[in-house]
Formats: sequence, structure tokens, C-alpha cells
Amino acid sequence: MTKFGRHDDKTLLSLMTESSIKALEDAGAGDRNIDAVYAASMLAGELNHQVAVGSALVDQLALVPAAADRVENGPASGGSAVKNAYCAIACGLYDTALVTGGEKMRHVPGEVITDYIATMTNIEAEYIHGVTLPSLAGMLARLYMERYGVTEEDLARVAVKNHLNGSKNPYAHIQQPVTLEGIYGSPEAEVNNPIISDPIRMYHCCPVTDGAASVLLAATEKAREFTDTPIRITGVGQATDRMAVQDRKDPAVLEALRVSAAQAFKMSKTTPRDMSFAELHDAFTILEIVESEDAGFFEKGTGPKALRDGVTALDGKFPINPSGGLKARGHPVGATGVAQIVEMTWQLRGEADRRQVKNAQRAFSCNLGGFANNVVAFVLERI
Amino acid sequence: MTKFGRHDDKTLLSLMTESSIKALEDAGAGDRNIDAVYAASMLAGELNHQVAVGSALVDQLALVPAAADRVENGPASGGSAVKNAYCAIACGLYDTALVTGGEKMRHVPGEVITDYIATMTNIEAEYIHGVTLPSLAGMLARLYMERYGVTEEDLARVAVKNHLNGSKNPYAHIQQPVTLEGIYGSPEAEVNNPIISDPIRMYHCCPVTDGAASVLLAATEKAREFTDTPIRITGVGQATDRMAVQDRKDPAVLEALRVSAAQAFKMSKTTPRDMSFAELHDAFTILEIVESEDAGFFEKGTGPKALRDGVTALDGKFPINPSGGLKARGHPVGATGVAQIVEMTWQLRGEADRRQVKNAQRAFSCNLGGFANNVVAFVLERI
Repeated sequence: MTKFGRHDDKTLLSLMTESSIKALEDAGAGDRNIDAVYAASMLAGELNHQVAVGSALVDQLALVPAAADRVENGPASGGSAVKNAYCAIACGLYDTALVTGGEKMRHVPGEVITDYIATMTNIEAEYIHGVTLPSLAGMLARLYMERYGVTEEDLARVAVKNHLNGSKNPYAHIQQPVTLEGIYGSPEAEVNNPIISDPIRMYHCCPVTDGAASVLLAATEKAREFTDTPIRITGVGQATDRMAVQDRKDPAVLEALRVSAAQAFKMSKTTPRDMSFAELHDAFTILEIVESEDAGFFEKGTGPKALRDGVTALDGKFPINPSGGLKARGHPVGATGVAQIVEMTWQLRGEADRRQVKNAQRAFSCNLGGFANNVVAFVLERI
Repeated sequence: MTKFGRHDDKTLLSLMTESSIKALEDAGAGDRNIDAVYAASMLAGELNHQVAVGSALVDQLALVPAAADRVENGPASGGSAVKNAYCAIACGLYDTALVTGGEKMRHVPGEVITDYIATMTNIEAEYIHGVTLPSLAGMLARLYMERYGVTEEDLARVAVKNHLNGSKNPYAHIQQPVTLEGIYGSPEAEVNNPIISDPIRMYHCCPVTDGAASVLLAATEKAREFTDTPIRITGVGQATDRMAVQDRKDPAVLEALRVSAAQAFKMSKTTPRDMSFAELHDAFTILEIVESEDAGFFEKGTGPKALRDGVTALDGKFPINPSGGLKARGHPVGATGVAQIVEMTWQLRGEADRRQVKNAQRAFSCNLGGFANNVVAFVLERI
């Protein structure tokens, strides 16, 4: 990974090149031919005026004539790129594939980004009425408050936990811990943590981030040529949900996550109980709570209790987002799904330093496109 | 396919929905679950303000919870989407995948489109100096004139041939035949066929087009559930070349085409001589000539002679672009690679009516991203 954060002095392509080279060097593959390059970016053309960024990347990396594509699935572009690279290797077409997700967003006014992201809502039923992703998160949080008793304090607790984890991650955008009093229930909090979309406040939202992340995938029988500690993708899932939240059976359920997680667990012959930790898509803190339930780690409605009891803390029974999550690591949209795989790889190798999850054997990730209308899930394991 | 042309009254999403439904109905799959949807579009966000168009399409088609991604590889987005769908089926993850390519471009000023397309050139070595794709085509044509004696008349002959084929294709953007005298060597031609980028003239360029095309892919053992005349993808190839033409070993050689075509022929255990016809990427007429050589159908430098001798005409020994090609069918960039697969399928099934290639058994296509710096190639066969 590059450090996530603000990179005014770098182009999207240079960020993606940087993380790619790091991944190739980590695998001792700097002088190897790679069969294919999968680039993930949500807004390369819109924000950085560069289309076909996969072709540009393979040229920059001197990996010609490797095949190269860009995969775009909104903020799940990274997960989708990993999935497609996985399929290309699994079907035998390629032995090796580099996957690089990247986004450069901070140079663009926030309202432009919010608008592009809002084009992932239903155009006729949501977008034209001014619906944005923060507003959908606000409505989901309100529904969860009414139905399951989640509180604004719980939303803040996710932020406190993930900022603490992020403070131990040198790649995180925000490495500053926050206290509960600093962002909840105090006069100070009213100033520090203004309302964005009631009851969603600033510290319930991930930042806008520049950055890139890369992984090198290889066929199982080839992996040991690159590393003594290969990590295996044993489960892959992807599912969609109705685009407009109003069309969903239950707006408090992330059905696409349920289906994609079930696919990934089934394929890997595991259950949620077998996971050592998870990297979830906490673009808003409410999402981490809901995902922790719909992925199958906690019964519906009990996510907040697990959080309050410290179960999901770094030293808890089931750590969630040891990386700091989107909340603290940051969310360069096209890079996030790949960064999740990178974090899981480091954790499963025991290379996560101060944020290391003890005895990490298996891990789960989910990467959300749109407002959870497209979810990509993975199970990774030590081999 | 939708008809290719100008569709002011339709959105990109409605065009993609229309071709998708046609493909599903053609396969008798209107009431079937489909495992995955692959959307191809080069400029959905830039020109149509819609990101994550795969998610939108799966929702429109009521195919939720099918997996959905967008694949982008410039004007080879369609080919890349077919390839990735192929891999997902070939590795056993899915049994069925709908691939839909679409682009809506004609509502946007031409200079905006030319500019976005030019971002596929090398930013530092080409783009910032004003290089566009028509200018690269002009330089390639000039080099071919000097080295291999191709003439402006030859460039016009490609247009005459492809317009004639397009006049027999009810889906083509331009169904009007043109005469050689009308576009070459006459006082009338000087007016009809102005210079765009010397020696490239207007009739040496494909039009800017709106449209969408779809194919349903299925695992071999499932295909007969959908049709009595399945067509098999037996060869797949994809390769890149240096982005900047000045960095290539020989600017008159489309090396990425050579490599990707060789991959596709090897995988299908065929040779160029086994093909009944080909759908080539004639975004500029010079490209059809060069591709006909670098794909392996004619010796280097002899493409113009084959053209002049009528070998590549619809009733010739080896028809090229029976559909009319990009020149007459039109070039909605993200749709083109899928439209090539559609045309090959119709031809191999014997359903191409007035433009039917006699005894079509096997066919080859190539889809070019950038100025041939990323090429996707296929071999399709009757089974």
C-alpha cells in the first residue's frame, strides 16, 4: 500500500504504480513476468481525467505484454478486481495477476465527490430527489435506533475503536485516537462532531482519501515461488440487492451481504465462528454494526452489545477492522477492497506489528458498492 | 443488439437494458436466474453521469442477487467484459453470465469525446502535446504508405466494402453504401470526404455512435438448455503494448494484436487459415488493413492487395467485417467488443440474412483499446 491520506503531489497513476511496485517487491517478483494486471478505480476518468487506467499501469510497470483491465464496481471496485483476477487464475488462463486499486479524490470539491457517489443510488427513485449516501446512512441509523436500540453513543464507539486501531497502522489516513467524550455527549463533542445527516455525525463517516493498494495473486502451486507465507483465498462471494433502498424487503437488512457472505463461507467450508477477525466496510459507523450482524458474526440486533462489551476491539474475542477500517485507514474508494485483502494478508502472516490480531488463522472481508446494493466478500486463510 | 445510431430519446441504461432483454429472450432465458452480469462501458460516468452501471443494470433487469461488475478497457471494454465473464464461468464460479456493452456518446460535443479518448495515449509523451487517436491513425497510414505502398485509394476501398456490408445490416448505424468515386479521386470526393488528420479523411474514420449489445454466456454443458445452436468460445487472448507509439519496437506493427491473436489461435488449436471470416476493429480504415496482416491472415504488407483483389469482400475468400465493422455498424466504444461477438454468433448460426458469410464455421475477432496498446482477441466456433 501507499500511505493513505492526502497526496497533492502525486497523480493517481503514480500512486497505483507505487503500491504495485511495493507488492511486486514484497513477493520478490520485481524481475518476473506477470500474466495480467487488474486495476480497480471508481472515478479515474471523472476525477483524474484518465480512462483505461489498467493499460496505463501495465505500461508504467514495464509489464507489457501482460493483459490489463480496469474493473469498476463503485466503492467495491477493489473487491471486484480481486474476484475477477481470482477467476482468471482459477480457470487456468493465468498463473499470476497483479491487482491494484487506487483513487485520488481529495483535490476535488467534496460536493462533486458526494454527487458522483450518489449516482450509485436509483436515479429515478432516489438520486433526483437529492438522496446521497450519508442520507441513506442516516435513515439506516435511525431505523436501527428505533428497532434495535442502537444509540448515538454506539455509533461513536465504533469510531473510537477504529481510530485507536488506525493509530497503530502506519498506512492509515488518520492515526489520531479519539476519546468517547471528545466526540459524544459533551459540549466539546457538539463542536468537534457536527451533524452531517441526522443522526450521522462527522465522526460517523469515513474521510475522503487518496491512496492505492496492491496484491499479487498466483495459482496455488505457484505461490511458494514468491513467498514462504502464502495466504490463500478460500472463499469468494458477490451478490447484488435492489438499488433503491425503498425496494428492499427490509431496509435494515443488508441482503447482498448476507448472500455474498454465505457464498464465501460455503466455498471455503467455514462458518463465521471460524474467523479470527474481519475487515468490514465501515464507510459509516452504523454500517460496521449492521455488517457484523448480517455477515453472521452476531445475531441481528446484538451487534451494539458486542461492540459495547469490547468483543470487536483489537484485544477482544473477535476484532473487527484491526486496520482502522475505512473510518481511520481512509477510503480511497477503488483502493479499499484491495486494502482489505492487504490487511488480512499482513495479519494472517503475523506482520501487523502493534495492531496484530493474536493467532490469526482465517479472516473475512466485505466490500460494499453503492449503499450495499453490490457486495463482494472473501475468506482468506493461512496455508 | 439495439440498433446502433443516434438515440437522443434513450439513456445509456435503457439502451443496455434493451439489448440485455433481447439477448435473454433470444436464449429463452427471460424467466431464468442468471449468475452474473458483466457491463462494459468506457465512459458511463464521464458522458452519462452514472458510475457502477453494472449494479444499475442488474437491478433494471430484475436479476438481483446476480453478481454485477463493470469492466472498462477503453474501446476494448466489450472484449474485456466477455473475457472476464468467460473466466468466471470457466473456473466454475458461475454457470451463466450476461455480458452487455453500451455507450451513449452522440449527445456530447465531439471534442469532448476526442479528448477523453486521447487520455488513453501516454499522458506525458503524447496527450499533453495534443496527440489524438485520429492523429496516430494518420501517422500509421503515412508510414504504411511509405513502407508498403498502401494508397489513399486503398483506405477508401475499406470504407466502400464496409459500407456495402453495413447496408445489409439492419443494426448498423450507417446503412448507406458509398462509391469509390464518391469518396476518392473526384472533385465530389474532395467535398464529401474532407481531411481529418492527413492522410486520414472523414470516410476513413468510424462514426460516433450510441448503442448496446449483449451476449449470454453459459458453461458448455449448460448451453444446450438455452439454444439448439450454441456457439463456443474456443480461443481467448489479451495482450498489451507500450502505450506511447514512439516507445514501440516498430510503429507499423500492432504487437499486442500479434500476441493476443497467437494466444487465441493456440488455445483453440486453430490457425488463421482455419477461420471463415473475421470481425476486425476498423476504427480507422488503415487499422483494418494492418490488423488483417498482424492477426495472421495476410503476409505483412500484402493486406492492401488482398483488399484490392476482393478477398476480404463479403463474397470473397476471406470476408472481413461482414457486419460493416466499426466503419458502418458504428462504434459505441464500450459496446463494440460485444457487438463483434454478437455478429460472429449470428454468422456462425447462419442467421445473418443478406450479409451471411457462406459456410461459416469459425471466426476471429479483435477489439482494440487505446491505439492498439491493449487488444482482446477471440476465436468462436460452431459446435
